[in-house]
Amino acid sequence: MASRKTLKDRRRTDYAFRQEYRTRWLDNDVYGHMNNAVYLTLFDSIINAYLMQFCGRIPTKSNQNGFVAHSQCDFFGPVGYPSVLELGLKVTQIGKSSATYEVGVFEKGHPDVKAVGGYTHVFVDRKKRKPKPEGMPQQVRDGLTKLLTKPSAKL
Amino acid sequence: MASRKTLKDRRRTDYAFRQEYRTRWLDNDVYGHMNNAVYLTLFDSIINAYLMQFCGRIPTKSNQNGFVAHSQCDFFGPVGYPSVLELGLKVTQIGKSSATYEVGVFEKGHPDVKAVGGYTHVFVDRKKRKPKPEGMPQQVRDGLTKLLTKPSAKL
Amino acid sequence: MASRKTLKDRRRTDYAFRQEYRTRWLDNDVYGHMNNAVYLTLFDSIINAYLMQFCGRIPTKSNQNGFVAHSQCDFFGPVGYPSVLELGLKVTQIGKSSATYEVGVFEKGHPDVKAVGGYTHVFVDRKKRKPKPEGMPQQVRDGLTKLLTKPSAKL
Amino acid sequence: MASRKTLKDRRRTDYAFRQEYRTRWLDNDVYGHMNNAVYLTLFDSIINAYLMQFCGRIPTKSNQNGFVAHSQCDFFGPVGYPSVLELGLKVTQIGKSSATYEVGVFEKGHPDVKAVGGYTHVFVDRKKRKPKPEGMPQQVRDGLTKLLTKPSAKL
Repeated sequence: MASRKTLKDRRRTDYAFRQEYRTRWLDNDVYGHMNNAVYLTLFDSIINAYLMQFCGRIPTKSNQNGFVAHSQCDFFGPVGYPSVLELGLKVTQIGKSSATYEVGVFEKGHPDVKAVGGYTHVFVDRKKRKPKPEGMPQQVRDGLTKLLTKPSAKL
Repeated sequence: MASRKTLKDRRRTDYAFRQEYRTRWLDNDVYGHMNNAVYLTLFDSIINAYLMQFCGRIPTKSNQNGFVAHSQCDFFGPVGYPSVLELGLKVTQIGKSSATYEVGVFEKGHPDVKAVGGYTHVFVDRKKRKPKPEGMPQQVRDGLTKLLTKPSAKL
Repeated sequence: MASRKTLKDRRRTDYAFRQEYRTRWLDNDVYGHMNNAVYLTLFDSIINAYLMQFCGRIPTKSNQNGFVAHSQCDFFGPVGYPSVLELGLKVTQIGKSSATYEVGVFEKGHPDVKAVGGYTHVFVDRKKRKPKPEGMPQQVRDGLTKLLTKPSAKL
Repeated sequence: MASRKTLKDRRRTDYAFRQEYRTRWLDNDVYGHMNNAVYLTLFDSIINAYLMQFCGRIPTKSNQNGFVAHSQCDFFGPVGYPSVLELGLKVTQIGKSSATYEVGVFEKGHPDVKAVGGYTHVFVDRKKRKPKPEGMPQQVRDGLTKLLTKPSAKL
């Protein structure tokens, strides 16, 4: 992933796929801001939404599952309930059986990015929990490739 | 709270205050539907949103906190990620220091109510954790009364 | 379920099946106490633990799933991170396809019950989502019956 | 943080401070394993437990808060409900106002580490949200230093 300095300059337009998520009361911890672990639940949400809408994935039925191998997040400023968040998704790397996603977290009405993170999925056989010799499904590869090469592409 | 049969007939128009919440990946448990506990986190979210917008409440600063004394929920059908939910809020009872809220949970694009529940708040002194002799703040009472008596009121 | 007054007198020995759960940082909301929705996630945890250990249930494989039809909880005093909680489980009613559970929540080192709640499961066919003509599996009925009739039974 | 290969060899004895956490029903997502975001909630829990027990921290009262600047986690194999997890904590770096923690996640009864992650705290003034000129409180530095230099130290 890019350096912390680079990530801090991310803008909404760096991400072709975007969704809004309303924050919830329990997102905030005792400090009154969204807890760091909650960001990861939002990454899961936008990543799987894209996989379902544009890559033909049906989580409970597909014969390959995305196993998270590595996750990370850089935090630049607090957000929290009751704000509405705007998330953007891009793909930064695609391998034979793996893909790395980057998610930018913005707060509605504020220009600066508040956090940038993501994770690496390894697509594995549902039963054997190992990558398949042929790699990830072609439909997944095709869908993810759109987010890799054309940040401003129409989806 | 009303009977299960009555609650099952709730419509969006029974609730004057409404908000949309996008579901999240981790809302679903292993059965592939939103877990029963997650509904309660959404009740918290819409109830406190109303208290903050219409009753002058600032959770970390107000000198009375709402302590949940009793909660309940009736479930009529499953919802879950990646749907968008539409929640509606009404107030069913106001006492000297207590208020009972009812929340209806609808799925975008579906007419029938999926769950109806809520809880009773007792407003207590932040430090002593006991109700104050004068009861809840007047601004809270005024705001909640609007949701009690006029289900179709403009807010 | 019993009256609030009756529930407030519950003791650990009223429950034959007990488990300890260590609280977590994010269990606490901005008020510094365990959020009301989190209690429900603990009910799910102890109830399913009993179903798996004593009733032959395997959530991802059994051909009947427990659908939560109604949940409720009465709160008597706050608990929260970093305490360890002691939960007790009993069964208060068993029908042809349904069972109602009661869970008592205690804090390690404190005698008084902090909350009592639970829910009603309707066991439904995994695919049709309707109760089966023959009702819940016999192994489930047998296991739950032990918690219904003998609160001090050895499990 | 160390390389993924190095982290995969972590043992319980690499961590001087350890706690057990019982998993919960909703920790598992639709794939039947603990969701990646939940690991982060456990990191928060063990890190703050150490800060409270050994560094004099009281989250709602201390005049410096730990702001999470960067988090990460490497996952080596699935865990999940209903297992009991054993977590170990070490400190890998201490700066003037910052500290980096590493947490190892083990499953009771299994020798191999299942995940290793952690985050970097920047201690900031509660109101100004900036590091103080004098850096983190001395009591915090002293407590964290014990986990930095003596992995097998008696605490």
